[in-house]
Amino acid sequence: MAEPASTLAAGSVGTVETQYRDLLNPVRLDCGRELHPVRVAYETYGALSARRDNVILVCHALSGDAHAAGFAKTPPEESTRDGFGAEDRDGLASKGLGWWDGMIGPGKAFDTERFFVVSTNLLGGCRGTTGPSSIDPSTGEPYGADFPVITVGDMVRTERAFLAELGIERLAAVAGGSLGGMQAFEWAIQFPDQVDAVVAIASTHALHPQGVAWNAIARNAIMGDPSWQGGHYHGTDRKPNAGLGVARMVGHITYLSAPGLSDKFGRRLQVAEDIRYTITEPEFEVESYLRHQADSFVRRFDANTYLYTSRALTYFDLARQYGGGSLVTALAGVSARTLLIAFSSDWLYPPEASREIEEALRALGKPVELHVIEAMYGHDCFLLEEARQTPIIRRFLAGERAAA
Amino acid sequence: MAEPASTLAAGSVGTVETQYRDLLNPVRLDCGRELHPVRVAYETYGALSARRDNVILVCHALSGDAHAAGFAKTPPEESTRDGFGAEDRDGLASKGLGWWDGMIGPGKAFDTERFFVVSTNLLGGCRGTTGPSSIDPSTGEPYGADFPVITVGDMVRTERAFLAELGIERLAAVAGGSLGGMQAFEWAIQFPDQVDAVVAIASTHALHPQGVAWNAIARNAIMGDPSWQGGHYHGTDRKPNAGLGVARMVGHITYLSAPGLSDKFGRRLQVAEDIRYTITEPEFEVESYLRHQADSFVRRFDANTYLYTSRALTYFDLARQYGGGSLVTALAGVSARTLLIAFSSDWLYPPEASREIEEALRALGKPVELHVIEAMYGHDCFLLEEARQTPIIRRFLAGERAAA
Repeated sequence: MAEPASTLAAGSVGTVETQYRDLLNPVRLDCGRELHPVRVAYETYGALSARRDNVILVCHALSGDAHAAGFAKTPPEESTRDGFGAEDRDGLASKGLGWWDGMIGPGKAFDTERFFVVSTNLLGGCRGTTGPSSIDPSTGEPYGADFPVITVGDMVRTERAFLAELGIERLAAVAGGSLGGMQAFEWAIQFPDQVDAVVAIASTHALHPQGVAWNAIARNAIMGDPSWQGGHYHGTDRKPNAGLGVARMVGHITYLSAPGLSDKFGRRLQVAEDIRYTITEPEFEVESYLRHQADSFVRRFDANTYLYTSRALTYFDLARQYGGGSLVTALAGVSARTLLIAFSSDWLYPPEASREIEEALRALGKPVELHVIEAMYGHDCFLLEEARQTPIIRRFLAGERAAA
Repeated sequence: MAEPASTLAAGSVGTVETQYRDLLNPVRLDCGRELHPVRVAYETYGALSARRDNVILVCHALSGDAHAAGFAKTPPEESTRDGFGAEDRDGLASKGLGWWDGMIGPGKAFDTERFFVVSTNLLGGCRGTTGPSSIDPSTGEPYGADFPVITVGDMVRTERAFLAELGIERLAAVAGGSLGGMQAFEWAIQFPDQVDAVVAIASTHALHPQGVAWNAIARNAIMGDPSWQGGHYHGTDRKPNAGLGVARMVGHITYLSAPGLSDKFGRRLQVAEDIRYTITEPEFEVESYLRHQADSFVRRFDANTYLYTSRALTYFDLARQYGGGSLVTALAGVSARTLLIAFSSDWLYPPEASREIEEALRALGKPVELHVIEAMYGHDCFLLEEARQTPIIRRFLAGERAAA
């Protein structure tokens, strides 16, 4: 699917076009409902081996999409490269660079000279895969808030059905950061015979209560916006942009660390000389940054998708779902090797959560390694610290054990 | 002003009625405007000595009011005792107990058998002192967003003018937590000859950038609510309750610590058995708690006051205001003894900020002591950890140096 890069930087998968597939069968959901039809937006990078044994599924986080690597054939107006607050460091977002381009490509962490990397937009999404803004066949109108409540498990069963239709029955690895890592764990538990390895970065087995609270605040901001209209804003001339913007602002600050914010903005004023005595206008650079991020996000993202995805990731709780309260019990059936990466300053998905998973797998005698990378930019690190993650992931995928 | 307690618990100042005073002169503001008339809501506890040398001014935080101690003569519908997310542990809030009742009274930290304690509602407030919901004399309508942008310095000059009218020229101490502590620092710098001691708890010399960001998000939530109507919602049938509620939710989570939230709520569900697959209703106890806090807050608090007060506390920056960027220079004129208390888990006003103040004062050879109390409930501790603060404050006010 990826065209060879000629004028592009070495290591790029080149120009990529997102593709779409309508699943043959309905998807059964945890809530008891069935979804049909279900369309999946996806991209692939690299070549599928004859034995179909070199597939890596990459799962995205809350605000990502299928365009994980390379340059989009039709660059979107707003890139997802700033997916988690990560800056567009290279000025490349406007050219449609994928959200994990630094990690996927020839010679990169997920090496497309060796692996066939598949990336899908998750169930409930707003970037091509069926979600709340899709047409409800029973009404001919967008689902809106009538879209069924989904879980991370539902996302993974959808990915499984999609891959099966592509003729892929086995994954060399499932990889993702944040909510993407949650999907990787679900894969390893739901389909233990089909997953050789898990790469879960800046993720958790269950969001901690403060994270649950941040997500609740974000959803309340959206639902409290009168333009949300009970979730049925499609087809009206109003969208809950104010609420979605506030949700995004909350997200951004939780994705960064306090020291990272201090390092990046300090208390610098917009007008260096002095304060201007204004309530309505940004005075501090960090205030201006938040407004910009909110404005940019609402142009590319659907508020209902935010609600459903946020709800799914707060529900996610391996011990509750699969272990009767015990993480060890929940992970007992896993057969994949597991690589965990966490970042020292990530307070939304803190290293402690990864350590709990490591300890549970170790108690079960299963192969696992955890790397905690010292870095300042909080949860965003999983998108930013490519250079430090790459050797760890490459070695792990080569089947070598870590030195320490 | 306080009536003797008969059936009340020992240590209470009894039943108290908030009083009001209209200042004789206009208040000159940092922004260049003048405010007139200015009314100040206040309460006093204890008796003024003949030499008028036993006055302690208590300054409240963002959402407090003049009713700091005792039982309100007319209990309000919604108490301010939950001022910073602190629970109504005793079920006394509904009886109108003051927000710092555990600290002010006979034998308490601010001992009303020795001191005459004065508490005012701050300038810009919505609980009796002139603020955005007061009548603008030039229009006969509430100011709304035409209220001038105020600073912590303006709050303190208003308090100074008010005390002067009461015939009080000297303070044995100025005390407060959070924004209240900022006011105490302003007093010590603006009026060094009138302040003997500063008691600043869980406060800072300048909010860190993440705190600036949280405040910006809260203000954006309010101003993004269409019911805000550009700040002129008074006299209409709509108020920005949705936005103010989200602002309050953000506040609550920043006032608590992550471990405190885990300890208090964990991931407990509203319905213990299992999730109910709902986007709109709370599933987790912490979600329900946030909704309750938001609903309660919007009934008692004015959204514009929140905006103005939040803006003032983000502006506050002693080094910028008084030191050309240097905190040491800013504090050079202070003559008061200073007591700083901080809490180990307070990430909004972290111990580090108090330590920077301590070091600056120490570098200047000024008397200062800092106590960092190990406690779990974050910024809220200044309202909760009364028992541990009391001996420190009593000893400090008695003029004794700390043991360690």
